[in-house]
Amino acid sequence: MRRFVADKAKHLINKTRTTCSSPSTTTKVLQRGTASTSPSSSQSVVRFLSTDSMGSDYSSTPLTLNNVNPKVLKCEYAVRGEIVNLAQKLQQDLKENPDSHPFDEILYCNIGNPQSLGQQPVTFFREVLALCDHPLILDKSETQGLFSADSIERAFQILDQIPGRATGAYSHSQGIKGLRDTIASGIEARDGFPADPNDIFLTDGASPAVHMMMQLLIGSANDGIFCPLPQYPLYSASITLHGGTLVPYYLDEETGWGLEVSELENQLKTAKSKGINVRALVVINPGNPTGQVLAEANQREIVEFCKKEGLVLLADEVYQENVYVPEKQFHSFKKIARSMGFGEKDISLVSFQSVSKGFYGECGKRGGYMEVTGFSPEIREQIYKVASVNLCSNISGQILASLVMSPPKVGDESYVSFAAEKEGILSSLARRAKTLEDAFNSLEGITCNKAEGAMYLFPRINLPDKAIKAAEEAKTAPDAFYAKCLLNATGIVVVPGSGFGQRPGTWHFRCTILPQEEKIPAIVSRLTEFHKQFMDEFRG
Amino acid sequence: MRRFVADKAKHLINKTRTTCSSPSTTTKVLQRGTASTSPSSSQSVVRFLSTDSMGSDYSSTPLTLNNVNPKVLKCEYAVRGEIVNLAQKLQQDLKENPDSHPFDEILYCNIGNPQSLGQQPVTFFREVLALCDHPLILDKSETQGLFSADSIERAFQILDQIPGRATGAYSHSQGIKGLRDTIASGIEARDGFPADPNDIFLTDGASPAVHMMMQLLIGSANDGIFCPLPQYPLYSASITLHGGTLVPYYLDEETGWGLEVSELENQLKTAKSKGINVRALVVINPGNPTGQVLAEANQREIVEFCKKEGLVLLADEVYQENVYVPEKQFHSFKKIARSMGFGEKDISLVSFQSVSKGFYGECGKRGGYMEVTGFSPEIREQIYKVASVNLCSNISGQILASLVMSPPKVGDESYVSFAAEKEGILSSLARRAKTLEDAFNSLEGITCNKAEGAMYLFPRINLPDKAIKAAEEAKTAPDAFYAKCLLNATGIVVVPGSGFGQRPGTWHFRCTILPQEEKIPAIVSRLTEFHKQFMDEFRG
Repeated sequence: MRRFVADKAKHLINKTRTTCSSPSTTTKVLQRGTASTSPSSSQSVVRFLSTDSMGSDYSSTPLTLNNVNPKVLKCEYAVRGEIVNLAQKLQQDLKENPDSHPFDEILYCNIGNPQSLGQQPVTFFREVLALCDHPLILDKSETQGLFSADSIERAFQILDQIPGRATGAYSHSQGIKGLRDTIASGIEARDGFPADPNDIFLTDGASPAVHMMMQLLIGSANDGIFCPLPQYPLYSASITLHGGTLVPYYLDEETGWGLEVSELENQLKTAKSKGINVRALVVINPGNPTGQVLAEANQREIVEFCKKEGLVLLADEVYQENVYVPEKQFHSFKKIARSMGFGEKDISLVSFQSVSKGFYGECGKRGGYMEVTGFSPEIREQIYKVASVNLCSNISGQILASLVMSPPKVGDESYVSFAAEKEGILSSLARRAKTLEDAFNSLEGITCNKAEGAMYLFPRINLPDKAIKAAEEAKTAPDAFYAKCLLNATGIVVVPGSGFGQRPGTWHFRCTILPQEEKIPAIVSRLTEFHKQFMDEFRG
Repeated sequence: MRRFVADKAKHLINKTRTTCSSPSTTTKVLQRGTASTSPSSSQSVVRFLSTDSMGSDYSSTPLTLNNVNPKVLKCEYAVRGEIVNLAQKLQQDLKENPDSHPFDEILYCNIGNPQSLGQQPVTFFREVLALCDHPLILDKSETQGLFSADSIERAFQILDQIPGRATGAYSHSQGIKGLRDTIASGIEARDGFPADPNDIFLTDGASPAVHMMMQLLIGSANDGIFCPLPQYPLYSASITLHGGTLVPYYLDEETGWGLEVSELENQLKTAKSKGINVRALVVINPGNPTGQVLAEANQREIVEFCKKEGLVLLADEVYQENVYVPEKQFHSFKKIARSMGFGEKDISLVSFQSVSKGFYGECGKRGGYMEVTGFSPEIREQIYKVASVNLCSNISGQILASLVMSPPKVGDESYVSFAAEKEGILSSLARRAKTLEDAFNSLEGITCNKAEGAMYLFPRINLPDKAIKAAEEAKTAPDAFYAKCLLNATGIVVVPGSGFGQRPGTWHFRCTILPQEEKIPAIVSRLTEFHKQFMDEFRG
């Protein structure tokens, strides 16, 4: 980074020109990008790139693009798509030759993966996990010197909740009952309404929980699922893989990505007229990729609408601890529904939670749960059956899910340091969000709503016609064109808005607020410089 | 257990009578069993049982058995099905009143879950996991006293393989590259043929890997997957959930559950005549639920058949370390194929491995991988895309998968104790298998093939006509009837053969060899006593 600011500004500007100005070069760069939608590590990207004719050698193997499940072919997942493959290739280039590009590192702003960017894990959580992994050391004297007293106590408590203290055994398919008790208590404390441990299904992160519900709800292409646009592409991918129909409702960018019931009503009418039976409504709050926190009144309207139209409400609440503005607060949809007087039998509601987000950001642990309320016993049996086919979610993830819903309390030995870690991370995220938001809003043709919550900004770019034409020539979406130019010039990885869905004719990208705080100024200056160059290049 | 042998033999006999002799009582017991196919914990079972009319209260909720995805309704998974729910109910009864049943504990022989029955985790593996969970302690002096030197060294090595040492970050969608390198080296050492880390996809246990391949292969009900019968019901469940057709091939019980190519040819012909396009062949070696280890010559025939017929070979090799007889050895299908001269471009082959089985039995960690060879780059892209929708598998499971494929070596500090743990577990499993096998073979009307490998016996019961009639009256399969009577009389939980598939008119059950060795004599005596009673009751 130090090198960048000092030596590379000029190089950047020159390189930006060479990357985006000459149509022939642009096309070359982008075609290379397109060719590299290959699996995997930078190594395999290189392998596939260097053997273009390799496909034909597999002519005697049975599986081809013509006979693979067409739903798989159709599925898209931009967060780990083409741009990221290109980024991995550039990273490999830099490893082999640090001067190969006008930047010295790739800055991944494409995915909500805090610890990959240097965020440290919360100490208390990791202490408990380590002790549960190796309980033999719990009674050793050295352990007192290495671990906090309350982490040792908590590990004992958790082990006592696990039948036979066996952290290496498959658990109940919904997860360990004692941990579900803890989580239910945490939900009660959060909402002020009762929660039942039998309503909790622990899962390997929120994604498998979403798949499970989609599997239940989608029987054919006539089954529709209401999704916000822009949306987190897990939803579109899961709906496609299960063969259903995504019924969009557009969030209103002008009102800070608000959700208009009139939009829901119009889209429902349109869907019905096409013979689509809309089964459920997905709402992501705080929003991904849009970063808004829904107002309570808006949430009530959504609950009312689902109740009226007989829709299952699928509430993605994984960013519940990521709220950065004093004027907004997170309210779970269950709390909203209960406070409106809707009980267990009145509305079908699933709340998804994950250990990957919040201030802890433990993505690699793959922990999470869904709280399933308002389903008949017969339907619960079906959910249970699907859960049981995969036996259970990983026990470390289960333990962590119980910890995030029941962190250290005032008076516990770890409390002060825990609270400091939490506050340190959340206040830094708030500052980063504000800095990036201001930076985007200072750029020509870019407007950016406030990041009230979650981990993302979703700025809108008014691209000059010449840029749109260049993108067309390169056979790519204009926002993907912009994102690729940005990556090639600066090493900054963002996800084009077309991967999330957006109103036709508008262009965006999603940028996380996760790079460590000391890197933010350089990101802002790289971005600003690039954007000016880009606009100078393509301004009509 | 002590109580059982001393006091309860008489009670058992009486209870066995009351459970299975009077048709009215039998019906009552079994109906109760049937009614209890409810979710989950014993608590919810009780809840659902006590509120039979509850379903109707959910009349205003949108999801019903009439509009839920019919594939989900059709799916069955016996390993955690009806019998297990009944067992959980009995366990709850015992907790509330220890004298409520003629036994004092439930003995779960239904599932390959070693640590739930008291098997201790392998120390070295857990040391490394704990250190990777909480790397802050790696440099502390107390750590030297608590952990072996090579576990500390290994933790450092592994952390160095993880970008940013971030065990809490999402990894590459195929898993951490350095860990895949380790696994590939382990496969090479096992097989004597090269393995490529880019062919490895790390997964949360083997089950999600199987689902991923089914998702790829099944586009419609016309896509057929060859499965052995009996089979592990993950396969039938996954095929059903993905809407494909299970094409059965029967294993030959007379020849120790051998696989006859003539049977494959006949079944393929039949499937084709029905318009089924058979895409892949599942083979489970060592066998589940059948416990056989395939002979090398038999494996070659299978490879030859898949090659000839253009089938993807899906090799479930999760029991590769569970072989109990000196005359048999595990050979991976990849080794067999390569030794026949078939290379990467000649045959499409997927090998599934898991940390849940072997001598380590780390089911709760949900680690595993698939090695994918013989697929074109375009198809690999599709596999990668599906993997990336779920982001990545859990990192502890990934680490553990690398450890089981690269355990301590001669000279490492942990080697001697590690080798002793491994040998202790495997030799004990071999003794338990033999004792149970002999016990089954000593019973009237029961024959049981040798448990050469895996964790199961699959004895065949020749049930008297009267028992079959009683089962019919109770509207249950005869082997399920037997299994329920066994459970109600002894607390032993086995899975009826009908949950795995079997030749029509034959009846079996699957019994794991996993209860701790000191419990085996009591299991044998309970079982023997029960079986005599049962046969006396129903003998024609």
